[in-house]
Amino acid sequence: MNDRDPRYDAPDSPRSVGWVEAQRVVLASGDNPFVLESGTSLAEVEVEYETYGSLNADASNAILVCHALSGDAHVAGWDARAEQDERPWRSRKPGWWDAMVGPGKFIDTDCYFVVCSNVLGSCYGTTAPASLDPDTGKPYGLRFPVVTVEDWVQLQHRLITHLGIERLHTVIGGSLGGQQALEWALAFPNLVDRCVVLAASPRLSAQGLGFNAVGRHGIMNDPAFVEGDYYDGEPPAIGLAAARMLAHITYLSEQGMDNKFGRRLRSSDKPAFGFGIEFEVESYLDYQGRSFAERFDANSYLYITRAMDYYDAAARWGDGDLGAACRRIKAATMVVSFSTDWLYTPDQCRELGATLLRVGAPVTYLNLPSPYGHDAFLVEIDMLGPLVRDFLASDQGAES
Amino acid sequence: MNDRDPRYDAPDSPRSVGWVEAQRVVLASGDNPFVLESGTSLAEVEVEYETYGSLNADASNAILVCHALSGDAHVAGWDARAEQDERPWRSRKPGWWDAMVGPGKFIDTDCYFVVCSNVLGSCYGTTAPASLDPDTGKPYGLRFPVVTVEDWVQLQHRLITHLGIERLHTVIGGSLGGQQALEWALAFPNLVDRCVVLAASPRLSAQGLGFNAVGRHGIMNDPAFVEGDYYDGEPPAIGLAAARMLAHITYLSEQGMDNKFGRRLRSSDKPAFGFGIEFEVESYLDYQGRSFAERFDANSYLYITRAMDYYDAAARWGDGDLGAACRRIKAATMVVSFSTDWLYTPDQCRELGATLLRVGAPVTYLNLPSPYGHDAFLVEIDMLGPLVRDFLASDQGAES
Repeated sequence: MNDRDPRYDAPDSPRSVGWVEAQRVVLASGDNPFVLESGTSLAEVEVEYETYGSLNADASNAILVCHALSGDAHVAGWDARAEQDERPWRSRKPGWWDAMVGPGKFIDTDCYFVVCSNVLGSCYGTTAPASLDPDTGKPYGLRFPVVTVEDWVQLQHRLITHLGIERLHTVIGGSLGGQQALEWALAFPNLVDRCVVLAASPRLSAQGLGFNAVGRHGIMNDPAFVEGDYYDGEPPAIGLAAARMLAHITYLSEQGMDNKFGRRLRSSDKPAFGFGIEFEVESYLDYQGRSFAERFDANSYLYITRAMDYYDAAARWGDGDLGAACRRIKAATMVVSFSTDWLYTPDQCRELGATLLRVGAPVTYLNLPSPYGHDAFLVEIDMLGPLVRDFLASDQGAES
Repeated sequence: MNDRDPRYDAPDSPRSVGWVEAQRVVLASGDNPFVLESGTSLAEVEVEYETYGSLNADASNAILVCHALSGDAHVAGWDARAEQDERPWRSRKPGWWDAMVGPGKFIDTDCYFVVCSNVLGSCYGTTAPASLDPDTGKPYGLRFPVVTVEDWVQLQHRLITHLGIERLHTVIGGSLGGQQALEWALAFPNLVDRCVVLAASPRLSAQGLGFNAVGRHGIMNDPAFVEGDYYDGEPPAIGLAAARMLAHITYLSEQGMDNKFGRRLRSSDKPAFGFGIEFEVESYLDYQGRSFAERFDANSYLYITRAMDYYDAAARWGDGDLGAACRRIKAATMVVSFSTDWLYTPDQCRELGATLLRVGAPVTYLNLPSPYGHDAFLVEIDMLGPLVRDFLASDQGAES
């Protein structure tokens, strides 16, 4: 633990949820398989999740947090397994939204019972392509069924039911997590009081589909990929790193990258006239790619980006008409975009806000100024946090 | 020739420059080597170029057109070699700016003598990584020296001198070609009367550097790349295709991609729940990547993107101060950006226009509305053409 990042609260800080034990639960097995949107079913599904705070007597204070592409169930605090398990980076920093979630923080674990589960197909504890297929005893690889945002939400419903929660005070998430929050309000309109959709729209643009396609192209054409059956050997780290480098550019903004790196060279004033890593931005992306490839499974990356591609709330619930879909929603909804986010743009998020308004649903839409692009939902906590806190405290829930 | 695209003028159309014979000339050899910006020199340089129209008696009607990343000397008309050489796609469509250049067209070859040469390091006839190194008798590969925009302009100067042209009526180009036009006005302020910079800024942004880095990562990590020495075997087509797919997204705009592809599936209303090519945008990018890999050399792609990275007019001519650099310019300059171009953005181009204005140089800056993104300089000829035509006819040249 000696290399822990000093910027973060220590586990014993009064504002940290402290050491957290991740939990796992079997939510599909034997006579209760999990049927996916594709029609395929999984006979066994285990889900990794974490909880923070305490569920109150009438189970009315539950907040479901949904993670994004590379996130996991570990939202806040310090992983109790940090030193002995396969996730060494967990000893260096706390959960991905630790600045938001904790005692006295914006999502206050002294008041709320916060739940987050790792999505189906991800590589952090929930059943995934790297899991053993009970039919063969070998890792699924690409034989794992394609999963969707809808599947994730259905599985989360099983989880909260298991936890004794009937309805959610709030469901909240950013990016792909924001799409899960939206899907919750659409699929279970009577079970969600508040829905917070951050940096997410009802569907990915053609440009976003294109970026995902290029990322997967890199992975699937890496010779180490061997059709997804690489678990006995070296993983397709180069292809995965390339996918992450590219995706990382889409998470930042042009302005943010210019502020952070500009055209600075790494170690000299003059160009080296070669093809090595020379600009600071090249060095940064190379590092991001490599470190991601060490902590993420390439097959999971394929599955999660495909879920991102497929999600289309209007197609799913309104036969292509977003207004018709939104008429289902009973939750009070807050939609937040960030001014320089070009993956799920302010225009796309505004369309969701405006459509909810048009169909008479209670909605707040805010576009926050930020140079941090899509990543702003993870970074701009000082600006976002108070808005979330106040929205949680409002009594505008569906049944109120 | 049977599969020629019917959208294009036939070679015998009165508005076509007709069949064009590309020419080659040795511009460096023996006691006249070509010294590069890096300090390295090339003992032999041959340049492929094309000309259209006739040089007038006092050689005052010469327009130099500069091509972009994947372009070549073949600006207009039909390649006389189309049927017998290594460039079969040339039989299907004319030069890359045929809509702009020809008899009676916006750059009127009845009035002007138009010259375009393939840049050093590109794979269309000028000396390049695929050329034989006279010292070894083998292709240069990565032993080819790194080239820069400045090198290209210096070599173009040798070419026009060879053609009997002392000063240019106009130098014009889009994207990387626009940077060459700008560099001409900076490096040879007394030899350029008019300079037209389209969809180009004085430097690439950090985001652009990042995209280039990801593209090269794909090529250089393709196992077929073998450190650039692949000319005896299969080229790194998968890596090059990936680089092109990615770059292609940056040439379009979000709006343009949504207009053109949206989220349409290629062959069905319902997703296939797999990882095949399913969305139309995936199919389009896959095609673009594959076809590019058939007609472009991966090493050339590395060299040209690196030249794009390195170009920085302010660093080169103003010690980092764009205003100081611009004070050199005597040419009348027209800078044109396109509203949805996010590779060389309107903001970046406006900075060039505003800086030229500030230092008292004659400049016109226009931001044209277009959904076609960076590609607009190739597409929006109806809007761009008249502006270029009128600017060429103006008598605001440096010496006028």
